[in-house]
Amino acid sequence: MSTEVADQAATRGLVVQKYGGSSLSDAAAVKRVARRIVEAKKQGNDVVVAVSAMGDSTDDLLDLASKVSPVPPARELDMLLTAGERISMAVVAMAISDLGFTARSFTGSQAGVITDSVHGKAKIIDVTPGRITDALSEGHIVIVAGFQGVSQDTKEITTLGRGGTDTTAVALAAALDADVCEIYTDVDGVFTADPRIVPTARKLERVTYEEMLELAACGAKILHLRCVEYARRYDIPIHVRSSFSQLHGTVVSGSIDDQESQEGTMEQAIISGVAHDRSEAKITVVGVPDKVGEAARIFDALSKAQINLDMIVQNVSAASTNLTDISFTLPRTDGQTAMQALHALKGAIGFDSLIYDDRIGKVSLIGAGMRSHPGVTAKFFNCLAEAGVNIGMISTSEIRISVIVDEGDVDAAVTATHTAFDLDSDEVEAVVYGGTGR
Amino acid sequence: MSTEVADQAATRGLVVQKYGGSSLSDAAAVKRVARRIVEAKKQGNDVVVAVSAMGDSTDDLLDLASKVSPVPPARELDMLLTAGERISMAVVAMAISDLGFTARSFTGSQAGVITDSVHGKAKIIDVTPGRITDALSEGHIVIVAGFQGVSQDTKEITTLGRGGTDTTAVALAAALDADVCEIYTDVDGVFTADPRIVPTARKLERVTYEEMLELAACGAKILHLRCVEYARRYDIPIHVRSSFSQLHGTVVSGSIDDQESQEGTMEQAIISGVAHDRSEAKITVVGVPDKVGEAARIFDALSKAQINLDMIVQNVSAASTNLTDISFTLPRTDGQTAMQALHALKGAIGFDSLIYDDRIGKVSLIGAGMRSHPGVTAKFFNCLAEAGVNIGMISTSEIRISVIVDEGDVDAAVTATHTAFDLDSDEVEAVVYGGTGR
Repeated sequence: MSTEVADQAATRGLVVQKYGGSSLSDAAAVKRVARRIVEAKKQGNDVVVAVSAMGDSTDDLLDLASKVSPVPPARELDMLLTAGERISMAVVAMAISDLGFTARSFTGSQAGVITDSVHGKAKIIDVTPGRITDALSEGHIVIVAGFQGVSQDTKEITTLGRGGTDTTAVALAAALDADVCEIYTDVDGVFTADPRIVPTARKLERVTYEEMLELAACGAKILHLRCVEYARRYDIPIHVRSSFSQLHGTVVSGSIDDQESQEGTMEQAIISGVAHDRSEAKITVVGVPDKVGEAARIFDALSKAQINLDMIVQNVSAASTNLTDISFTLPRTDGQTAMQALHALKGAIGFDSLIYDDRIGKVSLIGAGMRSHPGVTAKFFNCLAEAGVNIGMISTSEIRISVIVDEGDVDAAVTATHTAFDLDSDEVEAVVYGGTGR
Repeated sequence: MSTEVADQAATRGLVVQKYGGSSLSDAAAVKRVARRIVEAKKQGNDVVVAVSAMGDSTDDLLDLASKVSPVPPARELDMLLTAGERISMAVVAMAISDLGFTARSFTGSQAGVITDSVHGKAKIIDVTPGRITDALSEGHIVIVAGFQGVSQDTKEITTLGRGGTDTTAVALAAALDADVCEIYTDVDGVFTADPRIVPTARKLERVTYEEMLELAACGAKILHLRCVEYARRYDIPIHVRSSFSQLHGTVVSGSIDDQESQEGTMEQAIISGVAHDRSEAKITVVGVPDKVGEAARIFDALSKAQINLDMIVQNVSAASTNLTDISFTLPRTDGQTAMQALHALKGAIGFDSLIYDDRIGKVSLIGAGMRSHPGVTAKFFNCLAEAGVNIGMISTSEIRISVIVDEGDVDAAVTATHTAFDLDSDEVEAVVYGGTGR
């Protein structure tokens, strides 16, 4: 790009938008999305849009696949699922054309989304958006199929897995040097807690990438980890907002280090939010011989079974027996696989028994400000105690404290913590709070 | 390909199959088709399969498009519709994998189906099947999305229009030098007449390309003209057969010239079949001044309106008035467009009036043998007269005689002709007779 053209682009602005399946549920929704896209174009921006498959169409395709083959080949499953975004992008382009603007839709492959060869959860390794920039320079709005790419080595169609379309949008924004990446969803933004549990939860105007990463990892299902990680790496501001309203949403940008350097000029909230997660289970390995290497063998076996662990606790060994207990949490969906892997080890390690508990929940307090404010942990545990909530396991990071509690105590823990840290809004904000598509 | 490999391929045989939407109506149908494909592989063949979109899914996509935009851009419509074959090919590949064989699906673009840039009715200009031959040499069954390709100049996704998947199959067969192209449909083959009208119609074991072209042009909706033309150009035998039975169908191969040279050794039927067509309308331009160039101006206007005419008749001019009538037939779907184009000419040409008649039908007698058997025309007209059928217009080719009759007389005309030319079978063959998909 010549300097002159680059300057022009900067003047006009380049906006990348992402619309998920819930924003594209039917023809009427598609037309609403098209009007919003055209609005951004009318404001003088170049506009590139990543779209997910419409509504439940991905589930319909998965259902069809399961009727034909219980374990469909990953290559063909990717070929099948990518039809969903293809349909979506074409109808969005049609709806834009119906509003008097021109749009060009591109598959992931056409858009230059280059990935590795891992079908079903490919990683983006490069973006070569030549066709996109050509179309933009011809004045078109560009619609790109999210969630998909083409493998560098084998030229096979791949899909990016969960959160794929968010990641597509951020990757396009990075490759095109966009001013902002707007992620449209069915909620108004990122909240201090799930409004279904805490009606007085407030929408956050802004969070750092690090806080968003912790929120995403702790069950706030607005953005996927990998999309936030990608945005942080390339310093792309993400604006999370609702496709059903014109409200300003939540901007994810900046790092906590930048914030600290500005601390003289801005009032930094200590805590940005309270997240919770009911998708985990806990396994306790009872009576493990307290010898060097026994714990390693347990976690080695779980790693070989492709299980991602979250929190891990090892009790202090009882001196009389020289046996210890090891507990860890993991996705409930991996529970049975993990139990089988451990049972197979029983003879080799000689532990007493396994306890599986999927009636747990995780509650996390997240905030960049807690780094410089001592006493947050004590306040958190005190308020849980006052609410009568028993703490099972604890883990912390620099900007997060997480506890495992009984599943039935999750709501009480979230509500009490939200109040204790002065996060409650004066009024109830009306929002829909749902999961993200892909 | 080395000579050795080429010889191997010749020994094993290479079969191209095509399955239409009616053969792929749901998951159970997909599994049945997969079993049939695997059967051909088990017999030692390399197998390449072209598939249409499942069941009514193309109509569903068109319906979705119409809800979003009354006149969707052709580029985006092609992008949308090609999702249908993408879904179809992936699930067929999955079903094959479930039977213990490996399959690789390819889009038209991946399969090297290169077309011109006319969205919605692109023509194939080249086939570069490198990925197909690679997959075959690795032992895979290959599934190709029918009906689609990629434009040579602009690298845009295109669709081939009606009969597109048949044409894809034949084009692949030609490019791969296949032994046969099997077109699977929901009828048992090509019949001497539509069995819904003539229950004693017989299935033809074999017809020449020329006869099949005449049959297709005259309303036998088994194969599309362009697919037969393609097969004739590259001398690819087409085996039309039912995906619902194991019966031998109809082989389309050879030319009538080859047949004549063999006439000493084989008994050649004079007539191969009686076709009919209820899709046409007739327009009569009454009172056209009988001057040089007036007729040309009429047909020039119709040509500019992109209307394909079929039969044309000009009455002998009445000496007293020096005015003549010109009648022609055309697809009913083009009727209103044609009438408007002609009305606009009324002042310039000065004809009296236009008569539009869509209550007509065409009945055609087709047979390579009629070239060497005089008297066919007389016998045809006599039998129609005996059946009380009035003839409106007549047109002939070397191996066909067509007449326009009242729509209500079509069945009687077909039945009488079928009997008069000794085409009746001794027994009624049970068949389903439907239209082709794409």
